[in-house]
Amino acid sequence: MVLLEIPQAVGKLEGLVFELEDCGFATLGDVKCTADVNDAFVGADWIVLLGAFPRGPGMDRSQLLAKNAGIFKSQGEAINKYAKGAKVSEDSGRDGLEGKRTLTPFLCSVKIITVGNPCNTNTAVAREAAPEVDDGNWYAMTTLDVNRAKSLYAKEAGIPVDTIGDEEVVIWGNHSSTMVVDYRSGIGDIANLAAIKQRVQNRGGEIIKARGGSSVASAANAILDTIRNILTVGKFFSAGVVSDGSYGIEKGLIFSFPVRAVEGGRTEIVKGLDVSTIRGDLDKTQEELKGEIKTVRQIFGLGEASKL
Amino acid sequence: MVLLEIPQAVGKLEGLVFELEDCGFATLGDVKCTADVNDAFVGADWIVLLGAFPRGPGMDRSQLLAKNAGIFKSQGEAINKYAKGAKVSEDSGRDGLEGKRTLTPFLCSVKIITVGNPCNTNTAVAREAAPEVDDGNWYAMTTLDVNRAKSLYAKEAGIPVDTIGDEEVVIWGNHSSTMVVDYRSGIGDIANLAAIKQRVQNRGGEIIKARGGSSVASAANAILDTIRNILTVGKFFSAGVVSDGSYGIEKGLIFSFPVRAVEGGRTEIVKGLDVSTIRGDLDKTQEELKGEIKTVRQIFGLGEASKL
Repeated sequence: MVLLEIPQAVGKLEGLVFELEDCGFATLGDVKCTADVNDAFVGADWIVLLGAFPRGPGMDRSQLLAKNAGIFKSQGEAINKYAKGAKVSEDSGRDGLEGKRTLTPFLCSVKIITVGNPCNTNTAVAREAAPEVDDGNWYAMTTLDVNRAKSLYAKEAGIPVDTIGDEEVVIWGNHSSTMVVDYRSGIGDIANLAAIKQRVQNRGGEIIKARGGSSVASAANAILDTIRNILTVGKFFSAGVVSDGSYGIEKGLIFSFPVRAVEGGRTEIVKGLDVSTIRGDLDKTQEELKGEIKTVRQIFGLGEASKL
Repeated sequence: MVLLEIPQAVGKLEGLVFELEDCGFATLGDVKCTADVNDAFVGADWIVLLGAFPRGPGMDRSQLLAKNAGIFKSQGEAINKYAKGAKVSEDSGRDGLEGKRTLTPFLCSVKIITVGNPCNTNTAVAREAAPEVDDGNWYAMTTLDVNRAKSLYAKEAGIPVDTIGDEEVVIWGNHSSTMVVDYRSGIGDIANLAAIKQRVQNRGGEIIKARGGSSVASAANAILDTIRNILTVGKFFSAGVVSDGSYGIEKGLIFSFPVRAVEGGRTEIVKGLDVSTIRGDLDKTQEELKGEIKTVRQIFGLGEASKL
């Protein structure tokens, strides 16, 4: 495992490493801490992009997007060079990667899960910077939203959370307050469903208010759930993936869809769900995402032809 | 699940409850938060005494013991009255406990795991205040020390941590820097074993220095390990339990021994291990524990006849 931190904070990772060691996990091998993005992803099979620059007082959304776009661009570039299966050039000067490097370009096998917000657009920025990585390997995490949607519904309805089936909850769109919380047929029949959906959309803020900081334990748990979901062939879940144009969502947009895990740690967008009742909401979250992408294109001076 | 906090902090538990809910755990039922020790343990099957008053600047050890003795005495009294299987008097005025209360005294079935330091002596204080609870149901946690002993040894020896057998590491005595870290035959043959033992003894301080706070994740993990150990019949582990006089340790002292889980969520002290090479160390940690008990007896004005 490799932990990447900013130079000012990398020293503080020691305590975290001690904690990991003291758990005595049989599955934990070496842990390396680094502040160098070019060291972090060498030979990686799975990458969790957890950190992002938080929105500070007086910072507007475009400033936040600009700050994070820079971070995720450099991470994308490093993933493109060094992750598992990525192309490594002969003159890269890196050693000890025999069996993991190749001199011809091919589709990268590393899976990337973005958690740091704005996670859809951060994923889009990293993807644009990593052309070697196949579109099927990018995930913007919306598992925490699914978990919240299930548990808040279960609490309100007075039922055990595990009686809600995977296919009964879908999160669509941007991991933001415009996300579409879609309780599918069968469990939608309680009185204050609109209020529950709204609470899921704004749960991040509710957590920050109650804790004085973003969710930690539940986000970590959702990352584990996401990896398990991806690796469980046949599993139905929601994730921000590269749109193939399904459901009228612009091709290439990182949009949370219902997906199903298939062989090889990959997923397919589930087609054919009836979205007539949420059509307007899907369009609204799509418009927000397009706006974020437009802002980032302006930041980088990119035209419409960009993959972003 | 019931979470007990001090009145000033109970409001802050809301964020923790939100995090738990957002994990969507199927095994999580209702979560109740309270600042009333008499509400916290009603019908409890398992109690983890996690909190303790931390040692502040300029505070000497007897002041620390006094502060915590008060806390653990009131917790012990409440456990005695309200935990699973404990006696509840007819005039207690509590309702809704049908099937869990009894009007005749009997041995309490609740299991108590003390984590808050000084954990052996805190356990002794709570036990003295809870005569209904059988001696076999008290545990002062030394699982974290076992995990640390295994992982630090494995790292030094360059072997996977899970190749170290349960019976190869025993923690004896007080959960303090006098604890005896006992690598049993077979794995003791590396050069700097003394340095590793010392590092295990002082790992708590090392963590505080690196993290700016006590261990959190590894302690939580060790609590889970402890409960699993207790429930796994035949499992060999270490825990602070009520001494039966084995190994020359004064009867009644809460001392970490090698134990083996037996039916009914109970454990037996493993007898007959050769301790000739650690005899002096066992006596030293026993003396420290007796000194702590003596201090607490003075605080409460108790004589030698006390169970404490």
